[in-house]
Amino acid sequence: MTGRPGAAPFITFEGPEGAGKSTQVARLAAALAGAGVPHLLTREPGGTPLGTRVREVLLDPALSIDPLPEFLLYSASRAQLVTDVIRPALARGEAVVCDRYFDSSLAYQGAGRGLPGALLRDLTREATRGLTPDLTVLLDLDPAVGLRRAAARGQPDRLEQADLAFHTRVRAGFLALAAAEPGRFLVLDATRGPDDLAAEVWAAAQARLT
Amino acid sequence: MTGRPGAAPFITFEGPEGAGKSTQVARLAAALAGAGVPHLLTREPGGTPLGTRVREVLLDPALSIDPLPEFLLYSASRAQLVTDVIRPALARGEAVVCDRYFDSSLAYQGAGRGLPGALLRDLTREATRGLTPDLTVLLDLDPAVGLRRAAARGQPDRLEQADLAFHTRVRAGFLALAAAEPGRFLVLDATRGPDDLAAEVWAAAQARLT
Repeated sequence: MTGRPGAAPFITFEGPEGAGKSTQVARLAAALAGAGVPHLLTREPGGTPLGTRVREVLLDPALSIDPLPEFLLYSASRAQLVTDVIRPALARGEAVVCDRYFDSSLAYQGAGRGLPGALLRDLTREATRGLTPDLTVLLDLDPAVGLRRAAARGQPDRLEQADLAFHTRVRAGFLALAAAEPGRFLVLDATRGPDDLAAEVWAAAQARLT
Repeated sequence: MTGRPGAAPFITFEGPEGAGKSTQVARLAAALAGAGVPHLLTREPGGTPLGTRVREVLLDPALSIDPLPEFLLYSASRAQLVTDVIRPALARGEAVVCDRYFDSSLAYQGAGRGLPGALLRDLTREATRGLTPDLTVLLDLDPAVGLRRAAARGQPDRLEQADLAFHTRVRAGFLALAAAEPGRFLVLDATRGPDDLAAEVWAAAQARLT
């Protein structure tokens, strides 16, 4: 419980499109509800009126957005979300579950798009004022499998249209982040069954509940 | 012509709402056209499809936007504008006239909202990749006068609703920027007549035409 000993945990889910993040976020929320743990669910980009507008811009396939402005838009949404939603919920003693957080920027805009890590980390520290998750669940998936899963769900968005080499770099970026902070990350093979995954996520979450 | 000797100039206009920037931008464009100087007019935030969308978000009075995400949104629009519009025009040998640029962020989000100058300058350098105007016209105006002018034009936007103390800090911020770079800035009293101002702007622009 980095920096907030004894507090309700801040739990994030990371991984590529098609890895089953939404399913596992919902499963964890159900488990928290079943255990009577007050909690708040949110997501990035989004989660605030500003974030919702920024999300529409970021996911609009008609817009041309370079890597740096893309990162700045994600960071703008994140800063507002941390201030208006995540920190107040944690301060109320609620657990917070967030579908994507700053690790996505480090993996997608850093490892994937090639923006310098120092720039990403410096600005992320400002945007989050240092708020790091207590637990980050990485649903790891071979990019080829993930793209097939996403395509099967309908119209691909801008991220999903990007090429396989990009997604391969993103996956390596996520795995490097997890390797650097083994105490924060739980890396799971996303091809495992959803019940099996949910059980392991819940065990990790429970270990962080006080 | 900072960093681009012999090139067509990059000219920006700065100052508060109600100072007459739009009028002077149009007058300079007309003078450039009359002199047969190829030129491009643009503005911040905006100027690209992404910038137009970001502009709508920034100027929406219904949205709550903190100083840091506000700065990040301006910077996102700016980065895309520099890459897609300003640098290509300058490379084609066209003069570029831009209604607001990074000095607005330094004045509004820095001096006005209190974000640290180092953060603003570091990220601005990244977002612009160091592209500094050759001439910046600052239309200086007492904030009380500017707010009355803006209100007389109709519904105030989010910026215009902010209070007088804020606008007083912004004005001081602009004047400090001008004092630090006297070779780049032309500071004009915005209460002077538009013809008079246009003549002085045109003289300064001509001095930077090769």
